[in-house]
Amino acid sequence: MSEPLPISFLSDFGLNDEFVGVVHGVIARIAPEVRVIDVSHGVPRGDVRSGALSLMRAIQYLPEGVALAVVDPGVGTDRRAIAAETSWGYFVGPDNGLLSPAAAIVGGSLRAVTIENPELILPSSGATFDGRDRFAPAAAVLASGQATLDELGPKVHPDDIVPMMLPLPEVGEMSIEGEAWWIDAFGNVQLNAGPDELRQIGVSVGSTVDVVVGPLKRSATWVRSYGDVEEGAPLLHVDSTGMLALAVRGGSAADFFVLRPGGRVMLRRP
Amino acid sequence: MSEPLPISFLSDFGLNDEFVGVVHGVIARIAPEVRVIDVSHGVPRGDVRSGALSLMRAIQYLPEGVALAVVDPGVGTDRRAIAAETSWGYFVGPDNGLLSPAAAIVGGSLRAVTIENPELILPSSGATFDGRDRFAPAAAVLASGQATLDELGPKVHPDDIVPMMLPLPEVGEMSIEGEAWWIDAFGNVQLNAGPDELRQIGVSVGSTVDVVVGPLKRSATWVRSYGDVEEGAPLLHVDSTGMLALAVRGGSAADFFVLRPGGRVMLRRP
Amino acid sequence: MSEPLPISFLSDFGLNDEFVGVVHGVIARIAPEVRVIDVSHGVPRGDVRSGALSLMRAIQYLPEGVALAVVDPGVGTDRRAIAAETSWGYFVGPDNGLLSPAAAIVGGSLRAVTIENPELILPSSGATFDGRDRFAPAAAVLASGQATLDELGPKVHPDDIVPMMLPLPEVGEMSIEGEAWWIDAFGNVQLNAGPDELRQIGVSVGSTVDVVVGPLKRSATWVRSYGDVEEGAPLLHVDSTGMLALAVRGGSAADFFVLRPGGRVMLRRP
Repeated sequence: MSEPLPISFLSDFGLNDEFVGVVHGVIARIAPEVRVIDVSHGVPRGDVRSGALSLMRAIQYLPEGVALAVVDPGVGTDRRAIAAETSWGYFVGPDNGLLSPAAAIVGGSLRAVTIENPELILPSSGATFDGRDRFAPAAAVLASGQATLDELGPKVHPDDIVPMMLPLPEVGEMSIEGEAWWIDAFGNVQLNAGPDELRQIGVSVGSTVDVVVGPLKRSATWVRSYGDVEEGAPLLHVDSTGMLALAVRGGSAADFFVLRPGGRVMLRRP
Repeated sequence: MSEPLPISFLSDFGLNDEFVGVVHGVIARIAPEVRVIDVSHGVPRGDVRSGALSLMRAIQYLPEGVALAVVDPGVGTDRRAIAAETSWGYFVGPDNGLLSPAAAIVGGSLRAVTIENPELILPSSGATFDGRDRFAPAAAVLASGQATLDELGPKVHPDDIVPMMLPLPEVGEMSIEGEAWWIDAFGNVQLNAGPDELRQIGVSVGSTVDVVVGPLKRSATWVRSYGDVEEGAPLLHVDSTGMLALAVRGGSAADFFVLRPGGRVMLRRP
Repeated sequence: MSEPLPISFLSDFGLNDEFVGVVHGVIARIAPEVRVIDVSHGVPRGDVRSGALSLMRAIQYLPEGVALAVVDPGVGTDRRAIAAETSWGYFVGPDNGLLSPAAAIVGGSLRAVTIENPELILPSSGATFDGRDRFAPAAAVLASGQATLDELGPKVHPDDIVPMMLPLPEVGEMSIEGEAWWIDAFGNVQLNAGPDELRQIGVSVGSTVDVVVGPLKRSATWVRSYGDVEEGAPLLHVDSTGMLALAVRGGSAADFFVLRPGGRVMLRRP
């Protein structure tokens, strides 16, 4: 028998209820030898896009194995439950776009199935809690080698998996119209644009750009690291995931630029 | 020597302090081979009933072993510290009703002791932190087989363990007077009643009932799953733990019905 | 080969983003056999002193191995990244005082290096995320024995590690002028003074002292445990880490005494 694979688990369950603990419990009952890494359970409730972006940013740092992701506002509807194989390992979760960006980052799905085998689904005395009853057992049997992908249910063509539409920035001659993708706990604001777009509008490291949010215009200097600006000063940099981000040294860029996730931002060459 | 048992750990410690980490540390120092599953540490502070309900809902999904639960507003008083054996495994925690519903679900306590053996209690330079000094070591030695139940302290008759009084709903001819037991992070409101009570008042799946909270009357349809109502609509269903729950598809039933834990609710046949 | 060491991980990353999960992932990719214990990730953002105090309180309860701590407002500046060896094990983190109190508690650093070996640092496509790219790999290789301390980078003299200046209380004839060091999730307020200081001003167990916070004067009785006062009453006691703490039985001392971390408190013999 081969080595058990680790499971990396992301959800919007939060940590105040016992949901996350119950999923860990179900996995441990089925496959006690499998290790589970909690990626995050703080995805905003029902926010599939935020969950997809979080998993996408994390995936290359997670040990190859099984990615179990549950942000599932469509639970109890006819949205499908899927498991897909990639060169990184398996992805298990709802077919609502949550898994797609991360799967794409590691080369895309090679094979996929819908999770329907009743022998591998826990019975429930009421409404289905798919994280507990369907996804956790599927992840556990894949991780431990107790079942193959094909034993989980009928094949789905990878092209039929629901994609995640991620908005692209509009790059003009002097400006980029983009969006705040992610605001982390430190108040850093990741944008849906990278350094190449900034170079396209003629901005280089060391230059200052206008940052326009609604009626508010502020500016920020493109620097390599926090240490290149004064304490309290705003900056624009390529963040640790390779995307452009607004930050304030020792402060919150979300507060300074008055931005929330999904907020529109224009970067303009002055 | 037998296989080490996993420990499932629930508390109201929260995750902002190092309390949970210290308990993990104490267990790892005594029994490095034992795995610890965090059930939840988000039980409202000092709310023994909420903790008891959470552990009761989770227990059947946790791997057989040791349940370590600490919601202990009476720490530093003469409330007893107990360990009990059940057919599921061991329960360790304060004798304040916290463990009783979960222990009952798995068939009740077979044997019990108070944790008093000074050799198995960590010394403290100040006030006792029983989670760290008494409960964690007890759980660790039981899980690793380093001590038997009887070595922890003197026997207690299982009937002398403090029970948890859970309020029963009052079922009339046309209405159920009950209570909000649990409001989860999604705003779902679990009631202290099940589908049988609803059938007793002549309501069946597909019917609509009045939901009366104080002066406010709203209605909800009893459905099998979220997908049976429109986005934003209220519903009543048997939740994933087998109890009746109010929900709103894509929304918060706690907000919609203006309910908080412990709030009174009347379900009435219209 | 020797047994892998456990890693105890503390940070101010919070649990809403995937930062903590990514650090776990990096460690699992490098050293899958190493266990990671989360001490806490709820240190107030950028609050190096709170993080240092938390690690200091926890260290003696954590299994000997590697302490990985990241509260790093100076990331991206020229502050150093260090690894130190103590009789407890290794400490890995920024050289900003975060590690110093805990290292002192276990006898001080015996040897130290700056983490600079490029072969042991992950490449980043943008700004450095040292928790992920530098500290996690260093902790993983030390814990698994894949590298020695000296292989991480050039030696630093332990005396050159940045210390943490902790304010000492001023003890007069009748009063102690001190500070709130830590307010835990239950509202208990730990002071930067111990029982010896209280005895110096002529106060003994059972006595009542004035607690003066700004213009507000309240009083509290020095007791051994919560059970020695009535529900709702304030108390002063030696807490479970050996320091003086203000508490309210069944309530919040932070609210009662109107204290926040860092707030000045005077204890006075009446």
